[in-house]
Amino acid sequence: MIDKNFLLESDYAVSLYEQFAAGCPIMDFHNHLDPELIAEDHRFEDITDLWLGGDHYKWRAMRANGVDEQFITGKAASYAKFEKWAETVQYAMRNPLYHWTHLELLRYFGISGTLNPCSARRIYDRCNAMLREEGFSVRGLLGKMNVRVLCTTDDPADDLRWHKAIAGDAGFTVKVLPSWRPDKVMAVEGGEEYRSYVSRLSEAAGIGIRCFQDLMDALSLRQEYFKSLGCCGADHGFRDFPDKDFTDADLETVFSKAMKGESISSDDAETFRSGMIYHLAKMNAAAGWVQQFHIGAIRNNNPRYFRQIGPDAGCDSISDGRVASGLSRILGKLDDEGALARTILYNLNPKDSETIMAMAYNFNDGSIPGKMQYGAAWWFLDQQDGIRRQIEIVSHGGLLSRFVGMLTDSRSFLSFPRHEYFRRILCNILGDDLEKGLLPKEEYDFIGNMVSGICYGNAMKYFNVSE
Amino acid sequence: MIDKNFLLESDYAVSLYEQFAAGCPIMDFHNHLDPELIAEDHRFEDITDLWLGGDHYKWRAMRANGVDEQFITGKAASYAKFEKWAETVQYAMRNPLYHWTHLELLRYFGISGTLNPCSARRIYDRCNAMLREEGFSVRGLLGKMNVRVLCTTDDPADDLRWHKAIAGDAGFTVKVLPSWRPDKVMAVEGGEEYRSYVSRLSEAAGIGIRCFQDLMDALSLRQEYFKSLGCCGADHGFRDFPDKDFTDADLETVFSKAMKGESISSDDAETFRSGMIYHLAKMNAAAGWVQQFHIGAIRNNNPRYFRQIGPDAGCDSISDGRVASGLSRILGKLDDEGALARTILYNLNPKDSETIMAMAYNFNDGSIPGKMQYGAAWWFLDQQDGIRRQIEIVSHGGLLSRFVGMLTDSRSFLSFPRHEYFRRILCNILGDDLEKGLLPKEEYDFIGNMVSGICYGNAMKYFNVSE
Amino acid sequence: MIDKNFLLESDYAVSLYEQFAAGCPIMDFHNHLDPELIAEDHRFEDITDLWLGGDHYKWRAMRANGVDEQFITGKAASYAKFEKWAETVQYAMRNPLYHWTHLELLRYFGISGTLNPCSARRIYDRCNAMLREEGFSVRGLLGKMNVRVLCTTDDPADDLRWHKAIAGDAGFTVKVLPSWRPDKVMAVEGGEEYRSYVSRLSEAAGIGIRCFQDLMDALSLRQEYFKSLGCCGADHGFRDFPDKDFTDADLETVFSKAMKGESISSDDAETFRSGMIYHLAKMNAAAGWVQQFHIGAIRNNNPRYFRQIGPDAGCDSISDGRVASGLSRILGKLDDEGALARTILYNLNPKDSETIMAMAYNFNDGSIPGKMQYGAAWWFLDQQDGIRRQIEIVSHGGLLSRFVGMLTDSRSFLSFPRHEYFRRILCNILGDDLEKGLLPKEEYDFIGNMVSGICYGNAMKYFNVSE
Repeated sequence: MIDKNFLLESDYAVSLYEQFAAGCPIMDFHNHLDPELIAEDHRFEDITDLWLGGDHYKWRAMRANGVDEQFITGKAASYAKFEKWAETVQYAMRNPLYHWTHLELLRYFGISGTLNPCSARRIYDRCNAMLREEGFSVRGLLGKMNVRVLCTTDDPADDLRWHKAIAGDAGFTVKVLPSWRPDKVMAVEGGEEYRSYVSRLSEAAGIGIRCFQDLMDALSLRQEYFKSLGCCGADHGFRDFPDKDFTDADLETVFSKAMKGESISSDDAETFRSGMIYHLAKMNAAAGWVQQFHIGAIRNNNPRYFRQIGPDAGCDSISDGRVASGLSRILGKLDDEGALARTILYNLNPKDSETIMAMAYNFNDGSIPGKMQYGAAWWFLDQQDGIRRQIEIVSHGGLLSRFVGMLTDSRSFLSFPRHEYFRRILCNILGDDLEKGLLPKEEYDFIGNMVSGICYGNAMKYFNVSE
Repeated sequence: MIDKNFLLESDYAVSLYEQFAAGCPIMDFHNHLDPELIAEDHRFEDITDLWLGGDHYKWRAMRANGVDEQFITGKAASYAKFEKWAETVQYAMRNPLYHWTHLELLRYFGISGTLNPCSARRIYDRCNAMLREEGFSVRGLLGKMNVRVLCTTDDPADDLRWHKAIAGDAGFTVKVLPSWRPDKVMAVEGGEEYRSYVSRLSEAAGIGIRCFQDLMDALSLRQEYFKSLGCCGADHGFRDFPDKDFTDADLETVFSKAMKGESISSDDAETFRSGMIYHLAKMNAAAGWVQQFHIGAIRNNNPRYFRQIGPDAGCDSISDGRVASGLSRILGKLDDEGALARTILYNLNPKDSETIMAMAYNFNDGSIPGKMQYGAAWWFLDQQDGIRRQIEIVSHGGLLSRFVGMLTDSRSFLSFPRHEYFRRILCNILGDDLEKGLLPKEEYDFIGNMVSGICYGNAMKYFNVSE
Repeated sequence: MIDKNFLLESDYAVSLYEQFAAGCPIMDFHNHLDPELIAEDHRFEDITDLWLGGDHYKWRAMRANGVDEQFITGKAASYAKFEKWAETVQYAMRNPLYHWTHLELLRYFGISGTLNPCSARRIYDRCNAMLREEGFSVRGLLGKMNVRVLCTTDDPADDLRWHKAIAGDAGFTVKVLPSWRPDKVMAVEGGEEYRSYVSRLSEAAGIGIRCFQDLMDALSLRQEYFKSLGCCGADHGFRDFPDKDFTDADLETVFSKAMKGESISSDDAETFRSGMIYHLAKMNAAAGWVQQFHIGAIRNNNPRYFRQIGPDAGCDSISDGRVASGLSRILGKLDDEGALARTILYNLNPKDSETIMAMAYNFNDGSIPGKMQYGAAWWFLDQQDGIRRQIEIVSHGGLLSRFVGMLTDSRSFLSFPRHEYFRRILCNILGDDLEKGLLPKEEYDFIGNMVSGICYGNAMKYFNVSE
């Protein structure tokens, strides 16, 4: 299935991909990889551990295929679990898992056949044998995919010890940078959990946090620390984007209620989020960071699995609130105060795609190309159709040429072929346009450079990372 | 237009259709056919009666084409009405009515030309002649389409006498099963209409209904009765999906207000719907039924036609409320109590498609493959583009292979070619993937079996109906 | 790039376009052209003036490309600005601006190469030379595109002097008709701005406006005046469509508050808009006008540019409110009172497309074909994909054959090739269907006439304009 023309339907598509995309290194500016595993150059026990140990996309598919939980997150033996996955994957034809699985087998392990119950044992044994070889540690896996830079996702209270260790290791040339993800600071309605988070943050910053101003001071200290370790971006997640007026006095009131253990109304919580994202965004601008807003995930929908497994159990979903007014309010205010950082907006609900695309472009200011970005297809949208739609929407509503491109958003060290997947779809779209005469053939080189930019160069410039 | 390759654009598509789809019987698990007409093996007076007697899709198109109401639902003569339809249908090119009309002419009557003002008289006469022949009674029409099972839509207060009569007729082998559709029980804001419905239900159940618990008891009795006649599924319709906390005391309060003729606020009505769907869903689970939720229809938008013609006048439309939070709440609660039935979710507003797809899959539990379903393209979405989108969304967000497939949702005995229409689109998509190398050619047989499953087998297993 | 088969992918598409579309005159029933420029047969200073003087689509793209404001709306020299645009346009590949720019160069100036930094000077000089020639005044530009009728957008307080002047000029045969756009009357929350508008209106009507009834009387007088100058349509813009109950007493109360300078709550403002659109719609029906509703634009999102540049600065965006219930309420009420004018509904948010399409068709009444219209792709949706989607949605949800087609909605005298763009996409879709056997080849002539109707004839009939 996956040959050199995979996903490429025209000669132009093939040549754009080969000349301008395939060779680009990877700048993966948002993922959830564990830096400890990189620092220690971890080796996975076996392919089950690597593939099924934490991948809730696969868990979700297995449950849908009628697989008992013992073979998913339970205590079944390694091969028994793998076999259930091999059985499930064929039922997942047309789901991105099907292509991803076979791309991963091919690109990391050189296995080109189909995974199914017949081939399961053979593939299991072969992968496991290879995982014991040179080049299949975590760093080896990154090397195979030509990863140049990767940005993990880190809490302000995190000590970033593993990032320090990696940066100190001269023999390892992949840049592994922390990203600032202060979502827990916004979750003021969390009760005991919130208070204990604030005390962790207080400890990390080395100052007491008694009032809202203390909280901001602690965050500033932590931000300096992140910056000192090369952090170049922040990331903020929202179920629904907040849209309330606020004053700093409001924030103080709500925060102090929370610290006293009083109950926080949903209005109070939204006011606090509105204010907090404003202050956090100003910090991002001051630091010269890129900020990313991920909008629209409802987490932990299944209370039973949440109790049994915890978060990231494969039970997250898409919210359907309004986004336009809240974004207009906050971005307008920030721009007006000269405090709007370079910003990438992502939506999980495709109903919001055009809304968010249009909103982003209200705040370009001519300072740099592509300051405001409509980000790559995220999570449930990260599949053929979703990727295609995102490219169309950026194209028609903005400047595709200035797009900073793909990221894995993944917890898995095997996810980097998703960049290849994206690149092939991108080249296919542009190749098709050339083929049909919708783009001028005499601009082939310009278009090729556009491809390289989207695959790698634009993100490097945007995040201001040196090679 | 409709030849053997209709809608099939590749050799793979043709062979998948011919080998794996065309021969499948029909399991039509949701429609609005009148069981009396089946029990009595009704004969339609003429093609006007059959086509225009109750089909509000056609009425809607005719009004849009500038046809006076006398030729639609009025007193004009049979041929005059038919002629207006023949005139309208050509103006409906690219509307599903255009393909449906010609598929119906071809599959039932063997007529392959185009319906237009020139051919109107000839086609009218020929259809009418055939309608007088052997094989053109209601049962004959079902036989022509190889219908094996069909599930009608029935009110809990219904006596199901016609289902009993059909079941008792050994010479007729199509299974005609009732479905449980207790929407009227939820419409607590309906005033006099609601009270008179409750009294009909009370009579049917043979117990008095004085309080909410009585209401539930009456429903239980009726449910037993439906079960005894082979009912295997329930169906629930929502304009907007309710999303309120409730206690049983709240439900009692609201119900008692309603019975006393007090006015019911829209908040009260939503609380009642939230609680009622919870209780009804628990009953569905206890009965081992499949439950279907149809979300997002605003009915009877045109007050004038509603007064003149009543409901189902061709003036129904698409609502645009939020769905994620309400669904997360109710499905989570049911799953947590071990009371979540197999569930199919349908949305009328395509903005909700991905939201509902993602939500459904939070609640698969490994008990059976495909427990939670994102249902086939419904009503306004039941056309080429909508069918294609639904297949893409199930594919990318879940397991297409486990999809229970198409249903007619129709009032017409001529609607069964919609299964063919769906099957052709399905095979075209999969054939195209094979052609382009997006699915492995060596898995052709697996894919073929997947097609048969989606066309027939999956639904039979899901609804637990024996052949 | 733009040859005779541009956007046409099949032989059928080419022949439909050539035979039935290319030769149609243009009926541009909604735009924002300045009638003064037509009356005076204005000549633009140079191509920078013509292209960049007021086109906020281009401004938006330039800012996104990192161009400093001095080259956009600032004081930079003409060629310096043009050069920045030439640089930007290549980065806008796949954005509609890319095709529009090259279509405009070709159709008006006969220039077929690509605009980029190399060709900038040559193209600039050549365009400017031509702009000084015969045939490149405003009327000349209209003539080149075979414009037969155009409807501008005018405020009730406008004196329409330029429309009068144009109508009085026997030598000029393009019909330039005013349209009634009373949006400012609805903006009751506007404070001082609102009051000063009311006094302008009062002056124009020649009567005092002290109460709501006076306001309506003034509007009636102005409406008569607009009618006397050939006005055949009204246009109404909404951020979110209002959905409130109201009485005339409510409207009086809110209006009187506004006139007294009291503050207007957002609830009051919505009540007023709900009532006002009802009354305005009744006036439209009484006048026999077509009414257009444009729903979903959030204007002036960027406060900084709003202060610097004013409205229409390229900072408008897409709202995401609900539309179904408000539309159902108002259209139902109007139909019920026999006061529903021919109506075209447009949405800016594509999430609303199917909702609005379905809603429109609830109110066809058989009086004329296509009374209720789902309008052409608007603003951010006016691009290849959006045009295609609109055609699909009208096709599947209604009668494409009765569609009144394209309009430019533009401020620029160079925008008329957007009709060609639309026509090519339309013919491509229909040609593709013929090619694939989805439409019967024997209906080719019918389909051709359908094309001509959509391109020109349907709108002429719908707006009741004689040639």
